[in-house]
Amino acid sequence: MTESILKRPQPSSELSANSQPLYRQLADQYRRAISNGVLRPGDRMPSMRTFMQRHGVSLATATESYRVLERAALIDARPRAGYFVRVAPAAALPAAAEPDPAVVAGTAQFVGIHSAISTLVSTYQRYPQALNLGGATASPDLYPTDALQKAALRALRARPTLLTAAGPDQGDPALRAIIARRALEAGIQIGADDIIMTHGGIEAVNLALRAVTQPGDTVAVESPCFFGLLQALESLGLRALEIPTSPSTGLAIEALAFALQTHPDIKAVVVVPNLQNPLGSVMPDAHKASLVELCARAGIPLIEDDPYRELVDAVAPPRSLKAWDTDGTVIHCTSFNKTLAPGMRVGWINGGRWHPRIGMLKFAQSRHNEQLSQVVLAGFLETSAYERHLRRLRDGLRLQRERMAAAVAASFPDGTRFTPPRGGLFFWIELPREVSSAAFFEAALDDGIRVMPGTVFSNAGRFDHFIRLSCPSTDLGRADEAVRRLGRLAGRMAAHAPKR
Amino acid sequence: MTESILKRPQPSSELSANSQPLYRQLADQYRRAISNGVLRPGDRMPSMRTFMQRHGVSLATATESYRVLERAALIDARPRAGYFVRVAPAAALPAAAEPDPAVVAGTAQFVGIHSAISTLVSTYQRYPQALNLGGATASPDLYPTDALQKAALRALRARPTLLTAAGPDQGDPALRAIIARRALEAGIQIGADDIIMTHGGIEAVNLALRAVTQPGDTVAVESPCFFGLLQALESLGLRALEIPTSPSTGLAIEALAFALQTHPDIKAVVVVPNLQNPLGSVMPDAHKASLVELCARAGIPLIEDDPYRELVDAVAPPRSLKAWDTDGTVIHCTSFNKTLAPGMRVGWINGGRWHPRIGMLKFAQSRHNEQLSQVVLAGFLETSAYERHLRRLRDGLRLQRERMAAAVAASFPDGTRFTPPRGGLFFWIELPREVSSAAFFEAALDDGIRVMPGTVFSNAGRFDHFIRLSCPSTDLGRADEAVRRLGRLAGRMAAHAPKR
Repeated sequence: MTESILKRPQPSSELSANSQPLYRQLADQYRRAISNGVLRPGDRMPSMRTFMQRHGVSLATATESYRVLERAALIDARPRAGYFVRVAPAAALPAAAEPDPAVVAGTAQFVGIHSAISTLVSTYQRYPQALNLGGATASPDLYPTDALQKAALRALRARPTLLTAAGPDQGDPALRAIIARRALEAGIQIGADDIIMTHGGIEAVNLALRAVTQPGDTVAVESPCFFGLLQALESLGLRALEIPTSPSTGLAIEALAFALQTHPDIKAVVVVPNLQNPLGSVMPDAHKASLVELCARAGIPLIEDDPYRELVDAVAPPRSLKAWDTDGTVIHCTSFNKTLAPGMRVGWINGGRWHPRIGMLKFAQSRHNEQLSQVVLAGFLETSAYERHLRRLRDGLRLQRERMAAAVAASFPDGTRFTPPRGGLFFWIELPREVSSAAFFEAALDDGIRVMPGTVFSNAGRFDHFIRLSCPSTDLGRADEAVRRLGRLAGRMAAHAPKR
Repeated sequence: MTESILKRPQPSSELSANSQPLYRQLADQYRRAISNGVLRPGDRMPSMRTFMQRHGVSLATATESYRVLERAALIDARPRAGYFVRVAPAAALPAAAEPDPAVVAGTAQFVGIHSAISTLVSTYQRYPQALNLGGATASPDLYPTDALQKAALRALRARPTLLTAAGPDQGDPALRAIIARRALEAGIQIGADDIIMTHGGIEAVNLALRAVTQPGDTVAVESPCFFGLLQALESLGLRALEIPTSPSTGLAIEALAFALQTHPDIKAVVVVPNLQNPLGSVMPDAHKASLVELCARAGIPLIEDDPYRELVDAVAPPRSLKAWDTDGTVIHCTSFNKTLAPGMRVGWINGGRWHPRIGMLKFAQSRHNEQLSQVVLAGFLETSAYERHLRRLRDGLRLQRERMAAAVAASFPDGTRFTPPRGGLFFWIELPREVSSAAFFEAALDDGIRVMPGTVFSNAGRFDHFIRLSCPSTDLGRADEAVRRLGRLAGRMAAHAPKR
């Protein structure tokens, strides 16, 4: 998008005929580019060096131009990344409503979400060309394809029997040792033997549920809730009790405390503490501490599903719930699926006081993970490559989120509410109450865009006028335009729908 | 072992001074080498060409020498493989007893095998240097390490995003298409969409059990039974009813028919029809047909666990149970873990009439398999490499089995019974009744050899004086000697144990 400016350098001699100082003339030129949409929210500004070369100015002039734009709230500096066109503040949309912690969704119910999801999947599979804003992974260019490919080639050459020799039951020891060291950053103190590698994070969550529940038991979950968890509960014959969850601070602790008192059949609590899916909320440290303490006191296992922690937009990602665990109450589940490689099914679990039982269940269910991807991962994690990749991934996602937020704010109708996520790739958007997300899902597909309707994020039918949008997996320009089309569609549907 | 003869060529001039014809003198020389143990049962004889060169004789003489040895029952010709020293007929040991089909083991019982297996594992882990005759895969040199490594390097170069892009839910479509074509050889007519890739065969069996049972239900299993299945039943809260199983013809159909009448709570039957683990039996076609018909008539799902079919020692491996299925009664589970690559966790399932439910369970439990190993496998199966590998694997295993059988027959005490398996790598040996396999297991470990005690092959304590030996994963000479030591150990234990 910045190409038109980048390719059309304006020599400073032309500008200097003007009576204004040079730095201000240049700032005005960029101000116009921003106001007429040549530069768009989230676009990267030229580096200082490029700016100096392009306009034939000194560092002092370049710096002063950027200060003018920064003071005018048109651009933002970002550490290590440079300057970016500021995103129209998402405050243009009202923040999502905070849930009423007194409203726990009725009673615990057996989960029956599968047929709705099947219908959803078979519907969108009829539109293979649709732009996918309903996915769960970042765009492919944000993952380190080349580096992982090279790591895999190295691993195969160094260890030719990776495919023909069976691996250790718990997973590759070298990888587990590296993971144990890295877990310190999440505040988790464990050894390599406290880790069992799993086929992705979802196998870890399934094993945790199987270790602590029997069919018919009730599990407290966040509301809205990642539909993959609802499917796991359904497949295990469990009931879900949906606990109000804040779009900014995550699970409402008081609501859970109340539920534990009134529902003695709750046998586990499942929480995504960092970048809840779909809300994008991050629990504050004090909430994390309270939650762990509450579950420990009640003697209820707390299953932490934490695959997004390293995508939180912060210099140092927050800690996991497990950091506050003193007696093995927390079962920690995570994976490298979202942060590193959607094609690698490498997750891990620390089972707290249920660790031996989880080891038995994992062995009985699927034996050890394949060695190859574990060795590739160990090689990648050993160097600084993973940290560099994470910084790049977070920067890339931030840019995409800012553009998406601007497009949503600019195009969705009155009555839309939205709290910007704290990182990651999900947008949980409340549409005007008149708009059914199921109808919106179908109409959007007809218009060539796939979204996730809110209906599949609750077993109790609570989010019918919500949608989840994901950062695009293709080019940003096409996604911008798609989001604007979605906004207009929502506007039309709100205008024509009978008020409810 | 043949080195001493191979390196000490006997020129025919020295021999021809003898009054006997040359071909007979040469045959006598080899007869002596066999009788004094220089050539051992199962050893490969020199090829015709080598024989001619070494002894400076014509093809006619070489052929005649081998005919003499063959008529004397000292060597055997094997198609495409050459001549081998004949194995002392295993008839030296009485065949294992046929089970009494009227004796179904008491009542269905909840499975409690895990703690016994844990103890077993932690015991043998204290002897990491022990020779492993308790494993479940063939020796590493029988798997195509180089070819698979090359296939993996090719796959990674051709498709760099294999690690970073998520794959299709059911598994790689190209691989499923190839598997569907190959399944015709097992008598199975399915399409690529009727296949779901799984993390090894054990995940397939777990999914099948979860699809058709609830905790507390009873499952009919073979007796003796692969302990991995007993662990799966235990982890799913199921009861096992052990059905008598013949060491030569597999599951006793009449016994199952009787059990189905008397136990209306049986919700599934699990059978390993080809090379039952640990028995090594293969069900005759007529039995397969009856079994499928029996289950179909009773409306009971028949879960077929068929990972060893291609290891059956035959020109054309037998068909799967699924070949006789007309109404979706049979759930077919298998993997490439035993036949191709123990390091690859690639299995698949056809769920018969429960296929959609199994697809849901697989997605909820662990999502799709990793793409990389599936693409490697597809590349390998597409060529003739897999068939060539299978022939080599079967030949290698046959040689190992024949030597093992000879060593067992030569060294185990009176009262030992044993039916040679029809292929594969397992030996199920009945020790004299006085010998406890648990004590034998510990004493053997002390002597540096790991075996599997019979106790873990039944939930009803039925095989206390049995052991399972596997073909060795290291050099055959060491294994021969180890089996002889085991035989002497069994002899001592039988002599000193109180009669029971």
